[in-house]
Amino acid sequence: MSEKRTRRGLFITFEGGEGAGKSTQIARLAERLASAGVDIFATREPGGPPGALPQAMAIRRLLVEGEPGTWSAESEALLNYTQRIEHVRRIIEPTLARGTWVLCDRFADSTMAYQGYGHRLGRPFVERLHRLALGAFKPDLTLVFDIPVETGLKRALARAGAETRYERMDVAFHERLRRGFRAIARAEPKRCALVDARGDVDAVSARIAAVLKRRLGARLPA
Amino acid sequence: MSEKRTRRGLFITFEGGEGAGKSTQIARLAERLASAGVDIFATREPGGPPGALPQAMAIRRLLVEGEPGTWSAESEALLNYTQRIEHVRRIIEPTLARGTWVLCDRFADSTMAYQGYGHRLGRPFVERLHRLALGAFKPDLTLVFDIPVETGLKRALARAGAETRYERMDVAFHERLRRGFRAIARAEPKRCALVDARGDVDAVSARIAAVLKRRLGARLPA
Repeated sequence: MSEKRTRRGLFITFEGGEGAGKSTQIARLAERLASAGVDIFATREPGGPPGALPQAMAIRRLLVEGEPGTWSAESEALLNYTQRIEHVRRIIEPTLARGTWVLCDRFADSTMAYQGYGHRLGRPFVERLHRLALGAFKPDLTLVFDIPVETGLKRALARAGAETRYERMDVAFHERLRRGFRAIARAEPKRCALVDARGDVDAVSARIAAVLKRRLGARLPA
Repeated sequence: MSEKRTRRGLFITFEGGEGAGKSTQIARLAERLASAGVDIFATREPGGPPGALPQAMAIRRLLVEGEPGTWSAESEALLNYTQRIEHVRRIIEPTLARGTWVLCDRFADSTMAYQGYGHRLGRPFVERLHRLALGAFKPDLTLVFDIPVETGLKRALARAGAETRYERMDVAFHERLRRGFRAIARAEPKRCALVDARGDVDAVSARIAAVLKRRLGARLPA
């Protein structure tokens, strides 16, 4: 009888402002890794994978459908962490434990960037909230998509959809957001990689592939 | 020109398990104080005064209408504090600042009792969450209604209504809840008064009047 212990999957998050092209790149990477034999599960925040977590989706609706001013920044941060607790416990942790890699479109750094920097709640509040809700739980790798605000907003506005609350906010807010994401990447250089998200989809994909090779080389399929 | 600075109102909360008779006593006390000339505003948690805080009411619905197991205890605590942040900032604080007294049916001690003790989340989690969300904000006086679990549940079950999630929980849960409320009252004897909630409405009213006279004598109308 051979005994094979399952090796824990890797948790990779994708962060950045609006219109940075995260979803396109996640879909591409998921396909590439899956065809190389890696078990992959793609999810997103807030809300988790569609259909899986009705309680987290209810919170997503509260967050994205209201008018600006509905929630204080503190409340938004707490709501984000409420859905995150459910997402991590019920989906992300058990999936990683099975050996599957999890790719997540937005995670804790988005709360830090949007509420901590964008709405000026500050780093300490969000850090204390993270430790309270999730302890030391962190992604293995975070790709922070960086793009000039104007370019990102143009891309985001070209998309349709009802979830336009953040996109309707002013440019100064989005500048704070971008500075926030860059500060997060600088503060945790081992976990985070800043990805230049300008240019076409293939160019960005190539940059991501290079980051993965450099950071996760030993774990990637040959 | 006479200058008159408004004296801050008092914030009085009413806590305790199901069927302890809090709402009846709040209505009585509000009437008694109002007819003695005190400006009174009665509210409740979760959700705040009906119609005033749609965002807090949306959270109340998430909390009271779901099946047990929908939320982890940590998430329930975060949801409770999310509506509490909005309630304190938008209603309670401005009302107290105008000199009006606020009577609140459940507040932070209910999160400590239900999630901290009932669902065994522990005191430190809820204390850290309170400091994060509300800092040093506390009621001036908290009346903790104490009643044997069996008596309280019988009263609660006799009421109609859809919000029966907690009432459907087992007796052991309600015993932990009662022990929790008693521990809270013991831990903060200056702020809290344990009120024997057995017996008829008049008897309990008389006990409450005695507590108020003892604790708030100088602030009560002559």
